[in-house]
Amino acid sequence: MERYDIIIVGTGPAGVSAAITATIRKKKILLMGSSHLSSKVEKAHEILNYPGLPAVSGPDLQKALLGHLESMNIAITEEKVTLIYPMGDFFAVQTGNNNYEASAVILATGVVAGKPLPNEEEYLGRGVSYCATCDAALYKGKTVGIVGFSPKEEEEADFMTEYAAKVVYFPQYKEETHTRDNVEVIREKAAAIVPQGFKAGGLETAEGNTYSFDGVFILRDSVSPKQLIPGLEMDGNHVKAERDLSTNIPGCFVCGDIAGLPYQYIKSAGEGNVAALSAVKYLSK
Amino acid sequence: MERYDIIIVGTGPAGVSAAITATIRKKKILLMGSSHLSSKVEKAHEILNYPGLPAVSGPDLQKALLGHLESMNIAITEEKVTLIYPMGDFFAVQTGNNNYEASAVILATGVVAGKPLPNEEEYLGRGVSYCATCDAALYKGKTVGIVGFSPKEEEEADFMTEYAAKVVYFPQYKEETHTRDNVEVIREKAAAIVPQGFKAGGLETAEGNTYSFDGVFILRDSVSPKQLIPGLEMDGNHVKAERDLSTNIPGCFVCGDIAGLPYQYIKSAGEGNVAALSAVKYLSK
Repeated sequence: MERYDIIIVGTGPAGVSAAITATIRKKKILLMGSSHLSSKVEKAHEILNYPGLPAVSGPDLQKALLGHLESMNIAITEEKVTLIYPMGDFFAVQTGNNNYEASAVILATGVVAGKPLPNEEEYLGRGVSYCATCDAALYKGKTVGIVGFSPKEEEEADFMTEYAAKVVYFPQYKEETHTRDNVEVIREKAAAIVPQGFKAGGLETAEGNTYSFDGVFILRDSVSPKQLIPGLEMDGNHVKAERDLSTNIPGCFVCGDIAGLPYQYIKSAGEGNVAALSAVKYLSK
Repeated sequence: MERYDIIIVGTGPAGVSAAITATIRKKKILLMGSSHLSSKVEKAHEILNYPGLPAVSGPDLQKALLGHLESMNIAITEEKVTLIYPMGDFFAVQTGNNNYEASAVILATGVVAGKPLPNEEEYLGRGVSYCATCDAALYKGKTVGIVGFSPKEEEEADFMTEYAAKVVYFPQYKEETHTRDNVEVIREKAAAIVPQGFKAGGLETAEGNTYSFDGVFILRDSVSPKQLIPGLEMDGNHVKAERDLSTNIPGCFVCGDIAGLPYQYIKSAGEGNVAALSAVKYLSK
């Protein structure tokens, strides 16, 4: 398998900055995220404190960052990373469809908004999943509930209908949904996973309804880093990082919101640079 | 005396970023530095990794930062800070001509290039000085040597002729000098301060010559932070800083090169933001 020097996960200002600096340092990188970069940036009304771009709108910052990547021929791989496994001298990076290897990884996945649902973490892998693409085949002919936190998850719901007998989609956002006809859409707020012995049995909503499912998929913009890399040391909601943005796992670096407060675009861009240079230094050892 | 919330010392990307964010947070700030911002930025050929400004030239980044400050009506006070004294719940900030007070300070003065000359630190205040404007009066009718590390120090040499009987200027740069006729210019590399008992007695050059002076002024772009704030804890060449960019002195924050490696513009801009928000948090206590 082709091995990358650095796999960078996340395409907000932190991941973009890391990719730019790592590329300048002639490292073979894989930048994984969205061709839209970051929904947070994209939706920002006006950013006043990104020095050099006064009062820039979110879409204009997005355009500037995309233009920067393009000018350096840095491509974005649009796959969702589901698991990163430290193998000693390299990392195995799993997405829905592929496996990759890299000597170092930089996590720039942002912070998970909100807390996990009650019972969510307990039943992960036992009826609760974060990746439709990965686990769809397990639910052939079954009944599946999908909790989607952004419109881009609708694709996952559509895909699921190719396996499951019944797919119910719970959009946790205001935008209109555009799913296939055989996806049932219920506009209720996910409140808890319903246990059923050893396995999860369904979803309870804030509206007081309970729905039985063989499997419940919870699709957030970002997965908790603890679930992404086993053994990663946390500090509350963030990954514990040193000033050089190294973590407790050698070769794993973090930048941006995931690395701690404040949540600011320019701070993230600065940290992306530092994380990339720290990774370069790690690789030279 | 008028008291500022935050005095920011230094106008590279770190200081500019700190000023922008502190202003957005409605703090009363004083930004001290140069209307050219930073000679390092100004002279940069091309900066490839400032995300959003691909392949930007130094002068264009300078223009973008100046435009950002202007758009927010942030003024630059062009005075050289010579001493910052922690007074408990505020800081006394001394420049050549004025005294200021602030509840918090942010140091963004960059790193001092090169080591001090042999005997320089030992004889500081005893014939060696870093500030012509401050100490000129002490050398009325005397002989003075001035070691200037950038053309802007020529002004200090000119000013010194109004007091001293003889002024010899040692430019440590390649540019042509434009000093007054009564300033003698010697193009030799400063090598050491010559001791003469309790006081400094002159300057030795790399060319092997020794010059006798009553006082030697060493004018670098930035003063060592340890000399700027008594008691500031260092970590080698940098100020020891936490991840929130606080230092061992409460209310004193750092950002940019002074806060440690890597020396990168986007890292500095990111840290300026963090230092400003940490100072805001400190002020709210």
